[in-house]
Amino acid sequence: MNLILTMRILGALLLYLGGTLLVPIPFSLYYHDGAWVAFLYSALICFSSGGMLFTCCRSNKDLSVREGFAVVTFGWTFFALFGALPYIFSGAIPSPLDAFFETMSGFTTTGSTILTEIESLPKSLLFWRSLTHWLGGMGIIVLSLAILPMLGVGGMQLFKAEVPGPTADRLRPRIQDTAKLLWGVYLMLTAMEAMLLMFGGMGFFDAVCHSFATLATGGFSTRNASVAAYDSSYIDGVITLFMILAGINFTLHFQLLRGRLSEFHRNEEFRCYLGLIVAATAIIVGFNWYHGTYGELGENFRYSVFQVASIITTTGFGTADYETWSVLPQYILVMLMFVGGCAGSTGGGMKVARILLLFKHAQVQVFRLIHPRAVRLVKLGNRPVDKEVLQSILGFFALFIGIFVFASLLMASCGMDLVSGGAAVIACLANIGPGLGSVGPVDNFAHIPAFGKSVLIICMLMGRLELFTVMVLFFPSFWRK
Amino acid sequence: MNLILTMRILGALLLYLGGTLLVPIPFSLYYHDGAWVAFLYSALICFSSGGMLFTCCRSNKDLSVREGFAVVTFGWTFFALFGALPYIFSGAIPSPLDAFFETMSGFTTTGSTILTEIESLPKSLLFWRSLTHWLGGMGIIVLSLAILPMLGVGGMQLFKAEVPGPTADRLRPRIQDTAKLLWGVYLMLTAMEAMLLMFGGMGFFDAVCHSFATLATGGFSTRNASVAAYDSSYIDGVITLFMILAGINFTLHFQLLRGRLSEFHRNEEFRCYLGLIVAATAIIVGFNWYHGTYGELGENFRYSVFQVASIITTTGFGTADYETWSVLPQYILVMLMFVGGCAGSTGGGMKVARILLLFKHAQVQVFRLIHPRAVRLVKLGNRPVDKEVLQSILGFFALFIGIFVFASLLMASCGMDLVSGGAAVIACLANIGPGLGSVGPVDNFAHIPAFGKSVLIICMLMGRLELFTVMVLFFPSFWRK
Repeated sequence: MNLILTMRILGALLLYLGGTLLVPIPFSLYYHDGAWVAFLYSALICFSSGGMLFTCCRSNKDLSVREGFAVVTFGWTFFALFGALPYIFSGAIPSPLDAFFETMSGFTTTGSTILTEIESLPKSLLFWRSLTHWLGGMGIIVLSLAILPMLGVGGMQLFKAEVPGPTADRLRPRIQDTAKLLWGVYLMLTAMEAMLLMFGGMGFFDAVCHSFATLATGGFSTRNASVAAYDSSYIDGVITLFMILAGINFTLHFQLLRGRLSEFHRNEEFRCYLGLIVAATAIIVGFNWYHGTYGELGENFRYSVFQVASIITTTGFGTADYETWSVLPQYILVMLMFVGGCAGSTGGGMKVARILLLFKHAQVQVFRLIHPRAVRLVKLGNRPVDKEVLQSILGFFALFIGIFVFASLLMASCGMDLVSGGAAVIACLANIGPGLGSVGPVDNFAHIPAFGKSVLIICMLMGRLELFTVMVLFFPSFWRK
Repeated sequence: MNLILTMRILGALLLYLGGTLLVPIPFSLYYHDGAWVAFLYSALICFSSGGMLFTCCRSNKDLSVREGFAVVTFGWTFFALFGALPYIFSGAIPSPLDAFFETMSGFTTTGSTILTEIESLPKSLLFWRSLTHWLGGMGIIVLSLAILPMLGVGGMQLFKAEVPGPTADRLRPRIQDTAKLLWGVYLMLTAMEAMLLMFGGMGFFDAVCHSFATLATGGFSTRNASVAAYDSSYIDGVITLFMILAGINFTLHFQLLRGRLSEFHRNEEFRCYLGLIVAATAIIVGFNWYHGTYGELGENFRYSVFQVASIITTTGFGTADYETWSVLPQYILVMLMFVGGCAGSTGGGMKVARILLLFKHAQVQVFRLIHPRAVRLVKLGNRPVDKEVLQSILGFFALFIGIFVFASLLMASCGMDLVSGGAAVIACLANIGPGLGSVGPVDNFAHIPAFGKSVLIICMLMGRLELFTVMVLFFPSFWRK
């Protein structure tokens, strides 16, 4: 591992973060909330630390795979650490751990909050909170579609006939090209949503913040009651639509811009994702109707589809307290928490493609018992899936469940009950936001002991970086030269 | 699929079951409980149905793999169906579904009960209830160590350098040889436990019944309060020891008889199994001490190690209501429910070897990212695990979790809460017995609606037959000639 080179890149990233920390200052001055000093100090700290790292750490070596892992993991951690400074300096979140939790939740597009009273925050800090989502979402797109495939990780391997070898020279231009194209799509969708929300009567500030949180599948709202505060079917509808769009592989959106609508239809993961949303909504509407949770079918549909979209895309916005629903709808939402969005989207979770392949693999295993001599490969969209990729996905599944179980054990050791502890872990590991029990949709994460919060911070990071990227750092051989 | 041949073998199995149904009659006559008529009628029905099937269905074909699957799955189902007759005829369990549940729970060595008042049952029925465990355990030993490896399923593939091909001619003698040797061990251990229990003051009847339930890792007791009714550290200790022995691969016990003690030490799964028991007990004792659950360390250890052994071996006997313990000990017990005993034991669950290999697989996947060109194989006990076997284990894991999730969904649709529904499923799927919530260690399964009981019956069967054996029957191609 070339630590010098890693530090240099982290320095460059900090300089970039310093720049983004200046963005909320105009908002602060406009709203006279007094928080601009906090942002200025934070930006100066970023500039000086970043500048020092960038200039002092010089290396003429090229970036290799190992530094790639280190840059991604430490990059996200540095962003969450330095991005927490405005909360601390402004006094909005006095506890450094809480501020770190909130910022990690932002940059990992999780949306779990330790704030009990959101609306009392200075406007510029609310903007920064939503911006951390949006920047995190940008990071995810590049990470999942350009960086991870080169490092040999991530669900996107599935869609490439050939994953390019991790050669240093090709790394930079490819990332930049991919990034530019997809950020264009991301920006366009964000702007579209903001305009549609303003069209529905939402103010500019709220519209921008909610669009940031939607496209990044984050879930931070500027209101205590989340999206329920607007009590508008139109706004619920717009946000539902854009949550679903944000959970789709961004290359599909890009293909759409090039006029290739057929790609949507041909993409098996997308069909499965839509099927899951339709099926889950239908069952939940049915059970909510049967139990008389909502008087009217329209209202029932509105709240049910919103929660389904919010959970499967791992956004975490709320318009209804699903804990007041009957058991089956709640259980379906818990299942969707594990599934998550499509590979190559900003959504978290295990990803639809992986779940699909797990089922197919199990099916092939049973088939082979009946026909021991027959050769049947696991396919995705009529293309056989490479054995190595399949092994990696099965490993991911085992690791995901393993981390979920172990982290829930640690939450239990803090005295959290089984449901709340497990729900807190999956809410963070799958980057959703709200869970069940004491971390349900109308609760928050403030009451969790410091140790539990630390565990959840690591879960957010691991889940967001597709586990392996963080896990490699625990191997001693990773650190050897 | 040769249905005729399958029916003929099932007929033979029914004749055998008819024979075992006569065994409780002397007990009935000795205790004057009047249930002997019920057994006689049941045996006659078995003899006549079995005899009819055996004589009418004649086939000169040899047994192939497909018939093997059908015989195993339908064999267990027939045993549970016909074995339920004495409960119905005697009026002890009037509902046929409840009687089927109880008998399936017996033959699959699960130990979940729908009885609310056990001690009021006629003695001969209590004996039959325990005997279903013991016979089920005998079946499991032959199934896991002789039949499944030939069908290409099951954890025991791991320990064979070469799994013999599924040729019909070699099937019968091998099964018989293996069966005789291992049944000898099984019988011997049962007799040893019964004697030790009687030595501790337990009556002959109770000692035999509890030994049957222990060696089969079943868990049916003759007392309402389970093993707690005897309130004896000696009895707790003996049962703890024999539960742990029953959770060990029976080939190891056989090796011990041949003087090869070193096999225990060389067996990685055994070391891991013991390690899990020691670690879980230590943590639970620690937490119970911290929370002041028990006054004395000796008492604390006695109850903690008993529950750990009872759960990891999937026996399900109770001496303490672990739901009154703090959250972490409960969570650890839930984890152990999924793990289960060693491959080739009478224990259920996913088996220690599979969990061990899942971890190793995930570790190798992470290692490969750091060293893309290095070759590192997953090993068990210094021997590399065949890739096909590993794929099958990963498929098993995915299927196990998938069935657990789907069955829990069905329990939620009956209105069971998340914890009780999930716990009921794992208690049956891993063949444990008690779960949590409304199916906790001091509760029973009587209150579950008929649909839920049916789901749990299928879970017991699937879990016991290592999933694949039952799953193949759902493939249309299995039934084609």
